[in-house]
Amino acid sequence: MTLDLRSDPITLTAALIDIPSVSRDEAAIADAVEVALREQTAGFEIVRNGNAVLARTNRGLPTRVLLAGHLDTVPIADNVPGHFTTEDGEQVLYGCGSVDMKSGDAVFLHLAATVAEPVCDLTLIFYDCEEIAAEFNGLGRIERELPEWLDADLAILGEPSAGWIEAGCQGTLRARLTVTGVRAHTARNWLGDNAIHHLAPILQRLESYSAREVEIDGCVYREGLSAVGVSGGVAGNVVPDEAEVLVNFRFAPDRTLEQAAEHVRSVFDGLNVEFELTDGAPGALPGLTSPAAKDLVEMVHSHGGGGVRAKYGWTDVSRFAALGVPAVNFGPGDPNLAHKVDEHVPTDQITTVAEILRNYLLGKH
Amino acid sequence: MTLDLRSDPITLTAALIDIPSVSRDEAAIADAVEVALREQTAGFEIVRNGNAVLARTNRGLPTRVLLAGHLDTVPIADNVPGHFTTEDGEQVLYGCGSVDMKSGDAVFLHLAATVAEPVCDLTLIFYDCEEIAAEFNGLGRIERELPEWLDADLAILGEPSAGWIEAGCQGTLRARLTVTGVRAHTARNWLGDNAIHHLAPILQRLESYSAREVEIDGCVYREGLSAVGVSGGVAGNVVPDEAEVLVNFRFAPDRTLEQAAEHVRSVFDGLNVEFELTDGAPGALPGLTSPAAKDLVEMVHSHGGGGVRAKYGWTDVSRFAALGVPAVNFGPGDPNLAHKVDEHVPTDQITTVAEILRNYLLGKH
Repeated sequence: MTLDLRSDPITLTAALIDIPSVSRDEAAIADAVEVALREQTAGFEIVRNGNAVLARTNRGLPTRVLLAGHLDTVPIADNVPGHFTTEDGEQVLYGCGSVDMKSGDAVFLHLAATVAEPVCDLTLIFYDCEEIAAEFNGLGRIERELPEWLDADLAILGEPSAGWIEAGCQGTLRARLTVTGVRAHTARNWLGDNAIHHLAPILQRLESYSAREVEIDGCVYREGLSAVGVSGGVAGNVVPDEAEVLVNFRFAPDRTLEQAAEHVRSVFDGLNVEFELTDGAPGALPGLTSPAAKDLVEMVHSHGGGGVRAKYGWTDVSRFAALGVPAVNFGPGDPNLAHKVDEHVPTDQITTVAEILRNYLLGKH
Repeated sequence: MTLDLRSDPITLTAALIDIPSVSRDEAAIADAVEVALREQTAGFEIVRNGNAVLARTNRGLPTRVLLAGHLDTVPIADNVPGHFTTEDGEQVLYGCGSVDMKSGDAVFLHLAATVAEPVCDLTLIFYDCEEIAAEFNGLGRIERELPEWLDADLAILGEPSAGWIEAGCQGTLRARLTVTGVRAHTARNWLGDNAIHHLAPILQRLESYSAREVEIDGCVYREGLSAVGVSGGVAGNVVPDEAEVLVNFRFAPDRTLEQAAEHVRSVFDGLNVEFELTDGAPGALPGLTSPAAKDLVEMVHSHGGGGVRAKYGWTDVSRFAALGVPAVNFGPGDPNLAHKVDEHVPTDQITTVAEILRNYLLGKH
């Protein structure tokens, strides 16, 4: 399978869709990408690492922009090869990976082959195993084995964002709230103290919790505090002496993990409840104040992109943020269609993203 | 091991304690009881059924009183053989079964051998496997195999009641209360509807539930509504779309099972909750208005017994009630000491219970 990087990125997306690349089975697509980069680009140092392909220029320019995309997809569900249709007068491309994220990969590959003189040094990383457990993530492997390859002034991940810049990420923590009572036989329940009944005020506070919205660098982060588990009970004839609620707090990146935990604890102030933080990960600030990021934001605003918004959930953007590299998601496709059987992308989004990034790399404003 | 049924019932209790008889291992004690009844009583038809021993007179008297006691105990915990001590100037007998219920068995065996001319026909049933799962209960087996043996005007079970008459029993039902919501990722929890949070008002009603007390035939029944289980949760990052509470309602025997279920349902009126009755058993009215029962109640009141009170929980009394036979618990020993390692009985309770029953069987008032 030969990829023509100079073809329209829409065509290139369709070609990538037609190379099946379910996680842990990316050898064929990585081979095709590596060969195409070696044969159809100039000025790149190219390295193969497992089923990841890395390429970078070393022209000594003051700014380095990193473009990263994963090559793997979720399991195929009768949606490969892809196909084009027209819906409401617009061309749409269906297929596994059309959104997540072969359209983003296609844009990056096309730019690598067609932008001859970018104003910045470029690093491209096409990696494997993003869709499965974090331990297998190809970008994580690169971080361990080739950490210098992740150095950049701005990292752009081509994850589907419908042409919006999605930046930063919320933090997450989980906590266990335990209430206690006194065990007794239900036939004489007045001798006991029912721990499950004592969950009422805890759940009431969750039900009435008013979540904060915070704007940082133009991104609005909306927090959320959710019960994700509740359990209690000894037997059908026993007043239980213990019950617990597990909560998950998604918090804006202006709180540290410690501050977020303290906030959750304070939600239950005055209740007789034991609070235990079970796990958590800090958020990542959007980092859109760096010059390289500001330029991209301006370009998106002035060229018909969607604008800037917060990224919900933990993504590989956070990996760069943790390394101190400003990072954003910016790619074609509605993220809500990712992993769906009817995954599809309006092709004009591919064109728009490619055009914005081309102008950005050429320093056009 | 030879039992001397004519010895003092205190001595006889100690002798029974010293024959280990953990549930499913009652052959030795059943043998001893059978031999003693055959050799030391007169006028009884005696039948062996598994490890149960049955004896009855057939004198054509207008009233039949049934005395029943289980021979088995919970597992021995270094508390066999038994021993006597003196506490606060009173003699106390320690040992596994001293309370539950070899002291009651001893009283019945002693009366069988020493009350020559009772005013009623007598049935004695000493049975096995009361302390383990209901399916093994010896009285249940007798009900299936020898149902005519359970016929009586009053059944007296020698279960520990500290010399009180414990009559009737509460009903019990369990119900599942299910609430639903809409599943979502916790990172965007406002797109979902958290079912666990919706448990708050249900648990609040349980917490504030005011239980009824009802007096029937002089017995006060105190009801109770308890959560016995709560569960919900999909994963640590998912807003759950379903959660449930299991409740157990213990209800006075003036409600039918259907009325009790309707009552529980009504506790949650106005809440968006699905109610499902999962299991239940009706209560048993005390039945103390029958002549045979009235005589016993009078005898207890006039001879230093404890009086009359409701029995909590389902016992073999209920089995007789279901057959239309008025039934009570009446035996020596504090029921709260049953199954304890330091199980013990003040011996004067054994004497009192034996004296009351002797007078009752002799028709003395």
